[in-house]
Amino acid sequence: MDDNIDTFQKISVGDEACFSKTITETDIYLYAGITGDFNPVHVNKVFAAGSFFKEQVAHGMLSAGLLSALLGTKLPGPGTIYLSQTLKFLSPVKVNDTITAKVRVIEKVIEKRHVILETVCLNQNNDFVITGEARVFIPVP
Amino acid sequence: MDDNIDTFQKISVGDEACFSKTITETDIYLYAGITGDFNPVHVNKVFAAGSFFKEQVAHGMLSAGLLSALLGTKLPGPGTIYLSQTLKFLSPVKVNDTITAKVRVIEKVIEKRHVILETVCLNQNNDFVITGEARVFIPVP
Amino acid sequence: MDDNIDTFQKISVGDEACFSKTITETDIYLYAGITGDFNPVHVNKVFAAGSFFKEQVAHGMLSAGLLSALLGTKLPGPGTIYLSQTLKFLSPVKVNDTITAKVRVIEKVIEKRHVILETVCLNQNNDFVITGEARVFIPVP
Amino acid sequence: MDDNIDTFQKISVGDEACFSKTITETDIYLYAGITGDFNPVHVNKVFAAGSFFKEQVAHGMLSAGLLSALLGTKLPGPGTIYLSQTLKFLSPVKVNDTITAKVRVIEKVIEKRHVILETVCLNQNNDFVITGEARVFIPVP
Repeated sequence: MDDNIDTFQKISVGDEACFSKTITETDIYLYAGITGDFNPVHVNKVFAAGSFFKEQVAHGMLSAGLLSALLGTKLPGPGTIYLSQTLKFLSPVKVNDTITAKVRVIEKVIEKRHVILETVCLNQNNDFVITGEARVFIPVP
Repeated sequence: MDDNIDTFQKISVGDEACFSKTITETDIYLYAGITGDFNPVHVNKVFAAGSFFKEQVAHGMLSAGLLSALLGTKLPGPGTIYLSQTLKFLSPVKVNDTITAKVRVIEKVIEKRHVILETVCLNQNNDFVITGEARVFIPVP
Repeated sequence: MDDNIDTFQKISVGDEACFSKTITETDIYLYAGITGDFNPVHVNKVFAAGSFFKEQVAHGMLSAGLLSALLGTKLPGPGTIYLSQTLKFLSPVKVNDTITAKVRVIEKVIEKRHVILETVCLNQNNDFVITGEARVFIPVP
Repeated sequence: MDDNIDTFQKISVGDEACFSKTITETDIYLYAGITGDFNPVHVNKVFAAGSFFKEQVAHGMLSAGLLSALLGTKLPGPGTIYLSQTLKFLSPVKVNDTITAKVRVIEKVIEKRHVILETVCLNQNNDFVITGEARVFIPVP
């Protein structure tokens, strides 16, 4: 896509991007099937009703995938190499919650072509679901 | 399941668990569909052939889901509340790589009922794919 | 569909139907995700290579689903109530094997409106994969 | 996993295992897609409303897959070869029913390394959904 454009050059500290999606039961069930994560809080409504959150919740790492999506498709975008991610899980995601993933550039490490981004996921009530930081590498195009 | 058993009491520093799975194209495509991560390195074989890794690779965060699966189903197991995770992505996962997720208890924080675990994913050649650390909370049963 | 037609009346001993499908890796992975059957012979190519069948195999019960499909869509068809099924698993199904499910009416129990069918699955080499018998009930339309 | 351990030796008559999952619409639709079982009682809410059970029901064979999952992952576990299964379908599974699969060892056939297990599925009201018996073979490790 950006064949001869150097994405790294174009990025500035403060740049932002976001992506929102409602997390459905289908997402949770497919995600369980991919990862093998059949924790009953995710796939057993009877168990979930008696658990800490009192109802079925999505896998926390599922929402983290929305952050990865943003990094790999919007900012910095295609070609980005994921180096590291920190994640704090602050609120549960319930079935049909609408999650907004946001990333914001907080540092460019010129000599290594690294970009450091603040990464957060919020729900439809603006509760923080995930906070954390990502570090990516942008290869020379 | 663990109705009257206190999982926190039973866990000891040094306890380990693992889970292995071959990551197929199907996994990558379903994961793209769930997260919206259509980064062409994952879903465009032509683009991927010309990219940094020279072939199609799985989403790094997909393998992180195997770690989450272990925490929520085996160690500590059902009922576990995920608090935080750090992830370093060290090697790409190619289509049909077999990934082994491993978690090992490195600390128990008695007063908070927190457990800290070393979390790694390895491929079939024993290359580190992900390293990091998880912190979880185990509610009173 | 068959609104006023009595399917039970129309069925004769000896009636047959069949349905064929190639069982792909995608089928196996989705089936694992639905059932939680992450037996490593199904989803771990490294483990499978060292196992009894020396390669990745499909879940036996997945092929049994093709029999259920035949009963519920072709013979007897929509409206059929499944009462019982016996299954002998005779050969493994490997990735990309093409399975033909066949059912044949062997008995009608008039007073109960039951139909008993011979049920088999064969692979592309005509090896028996599954043999068994189904009993179904056809409600008055 | 169980590399040098002889699972057959470790199993005793009376051993039990269980696995629970809520069967969602997503499961039913994916299962229809894998097996081709588009019986309208499963995928057509209008037809289902006028059918014997008066509402949409899951494929009986889908719940049987939970039994297979238990045999292949917990008891006896990885490496198990499925020989045969009998299934009686006693109650329909409705969308969002939570099904518990249970297996219990009832006989060991030492010279053949066969294990015979009672296999049942129950719903959240403890109604029997499936009863039956499985026979498996455990290869020499």
